[in-house]
Amino acid sequence: MEFSEHIKTANVEDVVLRQPFHPPARGTLCITGHHLLFSDREEGSFGQVLLLLRNIDAIEKRISGSSGTITIKCKDLCVLQLDIPGMEQCLNIAHSIEILSSLDHVSEMYPFFYRPAHLSLEDQWGLSTPERHYAQMEELHEKWRLSHVNRDYSVCPSYPPAVIVPKAIDDDQLARVAKFRQGGRFPVLCYYHRKNGMVIMRSSQPLQGANRKRCREDELVLQAVMDGSDKGYIIDTRSSQQAQQARMTGGGFESKSSYNCWKRLHRQMERGKALQESLIKLVEACGDQSHNMDRWLSKLENSKWLSHVQTALSTAGLLAECVERDGHSVLVHGSEGTDSTLLVSTLAQLIMDPSCRTLEGFLALLEREWVQAGHQFQLRCAHSAYSHARLQQEAPMFLLLLDCVWQLWHQFPLALGFSEALLLRLATEAYASNYGTFLCNSDQERCAEGVKEKTHCLFQALLRPRERDRYSNPLYEPTELAIWPSVHPQSLQLWRGFFLRWTSEARHLEEAQEEIRNMVIEWSKLTC
Amino acid sequence: MEFSEHIKTANVEDVVLRQPFHPPARGTLCITGHHLLFSDREEGSFGQVLLLLRNIDAIEKRISGSSGTITIKCKDLCVLQLDIPGMEQCLNIAHSIEILSSLDHVSEMYPFFYRPAHLSLEDQWGLSTPERHYAQMEELHEKWRLSHVNRDYSVCPSYPPAVIVPKAIDDDQLARVAKFRQGGRFPVLCYYHRKNGMVIMRSSQPLQGANRKRCREDELVLQAVMDGSDKGYIIDTRSSQQAQQARMTGGGFESKSSYNCWKRLHRQMERGKALQESLIKLVEACGDQSHNMDRWLSKLENSKWLSHVQTALSTAGLLAECVERDGHSVLVHGSEGTDSTLLVSTLAQLIMDPSCRTLEGFLALLEREWVQAGHQFQLRCAHSAYSHARLQQEAPMFLLLLDCVWQLWHQFPLALGFSEALLLRLATEAYASNYGTFLCNSDQERCAEGVKEKTHCLFQALLRPRERDRYSNPLYEPTELAIWPSVHPQSLQLWRGFFLRWTSEARHLEEAQEEIRNMVIEWSKLTC
Repeated sequence: MEFSEHIKTANVEDVVLRQPFHPPARGTLCITGHHLLFSDREEGSFGQVLLLLRNIDAIEKRISGSSGTITIKCKDLCVLQLDIPGMEQCLNIAHSIEILSSLDHVSEMYPFFYRPAHLSLEDQWGLSTPERHYAQMEELHEKWRLSHVNRDYSVCPSYPPAVIVPKAIDDDQLARVAKFRQGGRFPVLCYYHRKNGMVIMRSSQPLQGANRKRCREDELVLQAVMDGSDKGYIIDTRSSQQAQQARMTGGGFESKSSYNCWKRLHRQMERGKALQESLIKLVEACGDQSHNMDRWLSKLENSKWLSHVQTALSTAGLLAECVERDGHSVLVHGSEGTDSTLLVSTLAQLIMDPSCRTLEGFLALLEREWVQAGHQFQLRCAHSAYSHARLQQEAPMFLLLLDCVWQLWHQFPLALGFSEALLLRLATEAYASNYGTFLCNSDQERCAEGVKEKTHCLFQALLRPRERDRYSNPLYEPTELAIWPSVHPQSLQLWRGFFLRWTSEARHLEEAQEEIRNMVIEWSKLTC
Repeated sequence: MEFSEHIKTANVEDVVLRQPFHPPARGTLCITGHHLLFSDREEGSFGQVLLLLRNIDAIEKRISGSSGTITIKCKDLCVLQLDIPGMEQCLNIAHSIEILSSLDHVSEMYPFFYRPAHLSLEDQWGLSTPERHYAQMEELHEKWRLSHVNRDYSVCPSYPPAVIVPKAIDDDQLARVAKFRQGGRFPVLCYYHRKNGMVIMRSSQPLQGANRKRCREDELVLQAVMDGSDKGYIIDTRSSQQAQQARMTGGGFESKSSYNCWKRLHRQMERGKALQESLIKLVEACGDQSHNMDRWLSKLENSKWLSHVQTALSTAGLLAECVERDGHSVLVHGSEGTDSTLLVSTLAQLIMDPSCRTLEGFLALLEREWVQAGHQFQLRCAHSAYSHARLQQEAPMFLLLLDCVWQLWHQFPLALGFSEALLLRLATEAYASNYGTFLCNSDQERCAEGVKEKTHCLFQALLRPRERDRYSNPLYEPTELAIWPSVHPQSLQLWRGFFLRWTSEARHLEEAQEEIRNMVIEWSKLTC
């Protein structure tokens, strides 16, 4: 596709830009294949705004007389307004934005064109691989092996080519287990708890169906995990009723009779459309301009977002308790195993494992549990809270994760090595990015599109020295202890830094963070 | 009164104490005239808890078999539990607590007995006096004078002996104005805005009554303030309807015809019983142990506390706008002029005046606007949120002030020179204290009781070097600008540090504050 065919008007003079925290500015608007560029006439090249078109969630145009106004609502929740002289110009710009902000083909997206001087496509893509991850965990090697059964993605399209599985199970058996699990997502190891040797595994639901089908190999996998321990837990992120109903459509659960050492715990977690609607309601509430306190609190309640945060954190807490406190291994899944499953397993690892709480450790965790593990970023993050194009696959699962991590960060201000700014950056990048990390829905798709060869990696970029400073927590004091979040409703708060980031209040808090950061930098200079 | 006659059992062995953040401890309980003392047997003298009986808001006793349990609910919202062997002992202890925690006579209270080695009764009591305050503000002297018309408290029992009034009005006139204002609270200056010479005055309502009485001298006072300016504002902290109704009981408002240069603005602020009930509901909600997010948010809404915070801050913002932005002088009052009036005038000064935002400046502001200006601490803070003794005069007006100041502090983390710890300390001290500062209801009462001779002053104590460290804001960066609070409901938050201070979450936040503080101290050592 030639982007230029969608750009009838590439430049408009005398445009007025209104954006949060700035007085209105008059200047020139340019539209390119991937960006809106606004140059403030008065201040020369310094007053520029560069907006990735992909970041635009919705636009509204209003023509009055010979000029028009375009309101741009971004996926990062920022709202801008452009007053454009000339009706035709306004309509042309609006049309270009509409088309170019929702390009379908991955290879047309900006990460394939982003070539900053300081990054090279020769740089390592990603922080680690399943192979390296396995190699580093020697204590695993006795009982767990790296399987390449999925090397060509034929056994499980959403898994990476290599996964960690019990040594006792061979690849043929795994292939049969994959047939018994939705989307081929057979149980794989995602976390090994060094303190007691217990593990977290994750998978999708078993394809038990109405006639209660069994799979001997699937049962063997779970038996192999037990290994002397008397009991394991299966945390099903659906209610017991939902799990029962899933059998009608070919899914199901691990019945007690077939998996007698495993105890199922059901925790219903919202996903999909309900979660998307919760986000939309919350953002609408945050933008409510009325000064009515009751109305705000009741809209906040009505959005249910904080309830979803609470459920996610308490399910993750339950999982961590099973592993750390009670000393049992756990298998987590819901239906597909690519949404709430990943949410819970990620949070549980943050709760238990200090090595996941450093800046690198956290990014590596996201890479393993979300990027490599097959969260469908492209589908889930296609739109944010403003879009009127209600597709069916959107769900702010990753944003919910970041919110939950923020709650941990807020409750344990010293225990996490990264800053709130990192969480905000990730929340933005997941929806629109210069980098290839959150493109596509699986490792297979990323390989097919050549993402790893033709784009830069966000996680690598975030670890470069200058960025690292910004994204580290100046107050970080590592602790070996588990950080058990309080999930009392009183303890959970709206993530104002994100949901109200375009209000003035958030800016003052940023100032304070900046102040603390500067102090620490000065301090470390003095003590060096 | 002899305290000992109320103490039938002074010591009990083998008592189990349960308190937040600590494992249950077994030890000895002693009761004295003013304290509960618990000594942890195992740890010797280190495991001691000393609780001021005055801090106890309510107790509940439960006898089962030969032992009993006393639940102690403190005014600072802490809840303790004592398991006491022996039914009679338990009843005796409970009885002593009930009597001794609610002593009526000021002279029996602990501040009259508190004699720490590091403080002397010879030390200056209080930070300043109206005389010194006036002397320091030379720019006032041309048009304002210090009046001693109230030197023996006969003109206005709730005012200090000296107040600042327009030079054009003599003491005889003031005495006549006092007769026209409820409780004798004639208009006095409380703030002079250096930038433009405008002032804030405060008073009580005029005693207009049903027959629309006028007072020539009262009108003259307000005319004298105008002095060339074309308009002043009267901010009435009641609704227009409430002000009208007040005429039926002898009160009223400044009618347009008699005060034609003054424009009345009505802002209804809750006070008295409604505010007390709001606090009770909020504290009940905070203690709700159910894990239901919706329930919590709807209880929070239902308590209306945050609405009261919003109203107070927005009324103060309005007042500051009149003075700073529009350049007009303002008179504030409601009915008595000792509650919401003080709340609004204090907050407006914090918003506008940088000198009120230092640690000393803030304490001096509280001294002027609350202690000297006659807020009835003894009546208003007799009980907190747990007491079943529903007296009619309680109202958490001062706590509401501290909450509003916290909102400012939270929105402008660099602009205030004091820490959240100071606000928490003041919230505790207002209800139960070793110091005499918050005793009595007026300067007159404090003189009659000899408070200034026989007790120590809290504000002085808070400024001693060690305390000062703890109560300073390590991130403080003075600004000359006004700090305009956002009063959007989305910007106002529950003051978790106070209302949830006995939950684990609050402790982690304290840790972070401590960390920042230590860093700053280390840093200043290194740079000295």
